Amino acid sequence: MRGAVLYGPRDIRFEDRETPKIVDPGDAVLRLAATCVCGSDLWPYRGLQQIDGPTPMGHEYCGFVEEVGSAVKSVKPGQFVVGSFATSDNTCPNCQYGYQSSCIHREFMLRAQAPFLRVPLAEGTLVPTPDGAPPDDIVPSLLAASDVLGTGWFAADAANVKPGGTVVVVGDGAVGLLGVLSARQMGAERIIAMSRNEARQRLAREFGATDIVAERGEDGVSRIRDLTNGIGADSVLECVGTQESMMQAIHATRPGGFVSYVGVPHDVTLDGAKLFFTHVHLHGGPAPVRRYLPNLIELILNRNIDPGKVFDLVLPLEQVAEGYRAMDDRRAIKALLLPQAA
Amino acid sequence: MRGAVLYGPRDIRFEDRETPKIVDPGDAVLRLAATCVCGSDLWPYRGLQQIDGPTPMGHEYCGFVEEVGSAVKSVKPGQFVVGSFATSDNTCPNCQYGYQSSCIHREFMLRAQAPFLRVPLAEGTLVPTPDGAPPDDIVPSLLAASDVLGTGWFAADAANVKPGGTVVVVGDGAVGLLGVLSARQMGAERIIAMSRNEARQRLAREFGATDIVAERGEDGVSRIRDLTNGIGADSVLECVGTQESMMQAIHATRPGGFVSYVGVPHDVTLDGAKLFFTHVHLHGGPAPVRRYLPNLIELILNRNIDPGKVFDLVLPLEQVAEGYRAMDDRRAIKALLLPQAA
Repeated sequence: MRGAVLYGPRDIRFEDRETPKIVDPGDAVLRLAATCVCGSDLWPYRGLQQIDGPTPMGHEYCGFVEEVGSAVKSVKPGQFVVGSFATSDNTCPNCQYGYQSSCIHREFMLRAQAPFLRVPLAEGTLVPTPDGAPPDDIVPSLLAASDVLGTGWFAADAANVKPGGTVVVVGDGAVGLLGVLSARQMGAERIIAMSRNEARQRLAREFGATDIVAERGEDGVSRIRDLTNGIGADSVLECVGTQESMMQAIHATRPGGFVSYVGVPHDVTLDGAKLFFTHVHLHGGPAPVRRYLPNLIELILNRNIDPGKVFDLVLPLEQVAEGYRAMDDRRAIKALLLPQAA
Repeated sequence: MRGAVLYGPRDIRFEDRETPKIVDPGDAVLRLAATCVCGSDLWPYRGLQQIDGPTPMGHEYCGFVEEVGSAVKSVKPGQFVVGSFATSDNTCPNCQYGYQSSCIHREFMLRAQAPFLRVPLAEGTLVPTPDGAPPDDIVPSLLAASDVLGTGWFAADAANVKPGGTVVVVGDGAVGLLGVLSARQMGAERIIAMSRNEARQRLAREFGATDIVAERGEDGVSRIRDLTNGIGADSVLECVGTQESMMQAIHATRPGGFVSYVGVPHDVTLDGAKLFFTHVHLHGGPAPVRRYLPNLIELILNRNIDPGKVFDLVLPLEQVAEGYRAMDDRRAIKALLLPQAA
């Protein structure tokens, strides 16, 4: 088969790779219906995160179970499944506490920008759709559940979004936009999306944003304060991962309010004394997508939500390099890749 | 009158100061029944926190209302009152949200190591005891409610202590010890106090600690992991404010668990990426003592709790310098000061 491999800054290649097979008895091998490029893939693509030699890319996936290892009972060949970007046994104390992305057996997925994918800990990681193969038009939304929707949902949950609350979303990438959708689903009354990009502003409104703030940094914070009686928001979702976005999020939050952060922070440091006097709650980390998957799959299959709208570019997998370029240039929010006959 | 003034490192003087009087219509002037030295007073006392010239010290107080300003209706001369170290109007959005220590009119109290004290925002700051003057033996506990008990209680609350939970308390000062007491009141099943001081270990056990860990830093973290099946505690209360204690607290917490921090952090910085992968909740700040005061006063008056035990040294106010010395040397946990005829 052929899949995507990153060789260095802006050097992504579509090339021959070994077709995966069962290695451990707990594995499954999937034939992917769709995969995609993640905002987090852009960090190493831009050379802002070190890689150790050529690195097979991709960690978002859904598709059909092709084969399972001898220990896998609850997941069966032929099923359509969605899995998290982090594997989990779903039985350890961290999983049972709802933090499957800190499972004591966790591995972070790679290699999903390919037609076939080996998934370790298949029983604890994969969730089958209840009624067999889903309609084609719903596949993008199920793919989104694998990471960006699950992460946006965690962002809203970790920021304690409640019915009637005021929410700010910092970041207009796919995760931020789906943070808006999630906050709406959780009953937020007011959702302020921070974005200066017209297409993304439009999608934010479609997903439930009530206000748009185009300013950034301290100007953005001032605008949020103007919109919240000078106090700040109840819940702020930080969906970027830079020092500026983190400080913007913290300063836009009311004392006693909640800040979540769901993208790996890059060169972010927090001053303990300053954080102390903001009085915010802070929670984040790799989203425990597995916790939310059954609910998210149900919402998608019932057509209550349509997170697949974040995919504004659809390409055959062999054009993966164009997917990276379009996202790097911010020409696309998120690129869906179809493995087809690759 | 005479009160305590800090002139520089380890130079605390008991000297003439103007007797306070009503300045604003919202003020009250109290005749203090007791005051004390706080662990946080030791930072400037040790020269680790800058002061701008001679600084009247003290922010913990309880006593009798001597006089009130023209706007003060609900607090009356003759009442016995307890107040927080932070003033609050108790009506602004931050107060109503339960964060009175971020009241938009907040002032941090000073000048309480004295026989008389002016308290601004008296109606929102002071809580009278329901049945007049309390018995003498209960005054130390009411004084503790003014800061260290309220702060320990906030530490337990902010760390999400729940019935049946496993709690770690980092720091064996008065706040940490009262964090133990608070966690016990909130129903924690297991409370691990970190202390290497025998007298403090004893008081921790008296307040409800089930385990003592004497090791610190990474050794301390290893011991906590050993005691929690390798996973970490549900709730960890950071009651010191140094880089070491903060990292000890974070690393002793399970993924998805809760860390509170309630002492002003001194030269503490948090690495965003490292914090991200710990998966902890983090919340802290100046304790909103006012939120808890009515409940704490009731628990004390009913003799359900005896937080006054943290005062293991009682001195006439004029010996305030000895109070600082004893705490600086860790000969005393906390020094109670009696204004008497000073």
